[in-house]
Amino acid sequence: MDPLKTAILEKGAVLSGGVLKVDHFLNHQIDTDLMIHIGKEFAARYKECNITRVITIESSGIAPSLMAANELDVPLVFARKKKSLTMTNDVYTSSVYSFTKQETNTITISKSFLNAEDHVLIIDDFLANGKAALGLAHIVEQAGAKVAGFGIVIEKSFQEGRAKLEEAGYRVESLARIQSLQHEKVTFLEETVLQNS
Amino acid sequence: MDPLKTAILEKGAVLSGGVLKVDHFLNHQIDTDLMIHIGKEFAARYKECNITRVITIESSGIAPSLMAANELDVPLVFARKKKSLTMTNDVYTSSVYSFTKQETNTITISKSFLNAEDHVLIIDDFLANGKAALGLAHIVEQAGAKVAGFGIVIEKSFQEGRAKLEEAGYRVESLARIQSLQHEKVTFLEETVLQNS
Repeated sequence: MDPLKTAILEKGAVLSGGVLKVDHFLNHQIDTDLMIHIGKEFAARYKECNITRVITIESSGIAPSLMAANELDVPLVFARKKKSLTMTNDVYTSSVYSFTKQETNTITISKSFLNAEDHVLIIDDFLANGKAALGLAHIVEQAGAKVAGFGIVIEKSFQEGRAKLEEAGYRVESLARIQSLQHEKVTFLEETVLQNS
Repeated sequence: MDPLKTAILEKGAVLSGGVLKVDHFLNHQIDTDLMIHIGKEFAARYKECNITRVITIESSGIAPSLMAANELDVPLVFARKKKSLTMTNDVYTSSVYSFTKQETNTITISKSFLNAEDHVLIIDDFLANGKAALGLAHIVEQAGAKVAGFGIVIEKSFQEGRAKLEEAGYRVESLARIQSLQHEKVTFLEETVLQNS
């Protein structure tokens, strides 16, 4: 089995309310070999797309996207959830509502690090309702750059994120697609469904 | 010249108030080749120390420490500045005051990811006043684990951080030591001083 899915099954935990806890290898403790595997996988899926930059959002997106950027040999830029003190006002921003934290963050990328010629791969650890993903795409498009697609480590396929991104015309590549977290059990979307989707 | 120092001189910017902006390669956009270089350097300096875990603090510490953890073939754990929703109450915490942000963060690591047998390398992007570094060491020691030492990407040697860490008995390895940011110019500590310090 794919090492990511194995890690989810063996080390993940399903909490109440449809929360998948992956603190053992992705969100708090990080398994570096798994990150390299994930980085190679994203790079392979987007290798024909002339990616010039990878973007993600702090903090849990940084590790998998760094390894993907390394494989693609392009820089990584991570959006900040809070404007840092050393940022000037020359920034692209987008408002992202977080359901889990029940707060709106203004995510920010400096204008220096995106330009109209960029082909951007957007990577994140989770895709659920799609708010963060759409916020990142909004930032890329403010720069006049092209969103080549999304690379998602874990997709909650029972939420509307993928549908929203596909409706907006984006390519979505998710390495693990979860059909259900009911009864405290992880059920992956079947591979046949995966191929036809 | 060392690629990190070259990047600081060529791509860094000195802002008023002694702030060094390294958004082009470390804190916002990330140069993956440079991160690999940094990771190898930390791993080389601590290769005899039986490191079992690398820890850092979100967000800017994640990229360099991931590459160091990969070289040392151990897991990385990043402390959170804000307790995440999926964290239980089984955590180690420490209060860290940030001068630049003028706020106190409670940094947190789950008890699952540190144990008394660990030999921990603590990595951060900057060392200035040492508050964050001491907070991380405090967490490691709550677990009964050993702090093998610190790996710092950029040390502001004109601030008291290194002295505080050394007084507390810790080994500090900084890849770039900055003597001064006066007159909007980066001056590195001379190598002879480095070797005797």
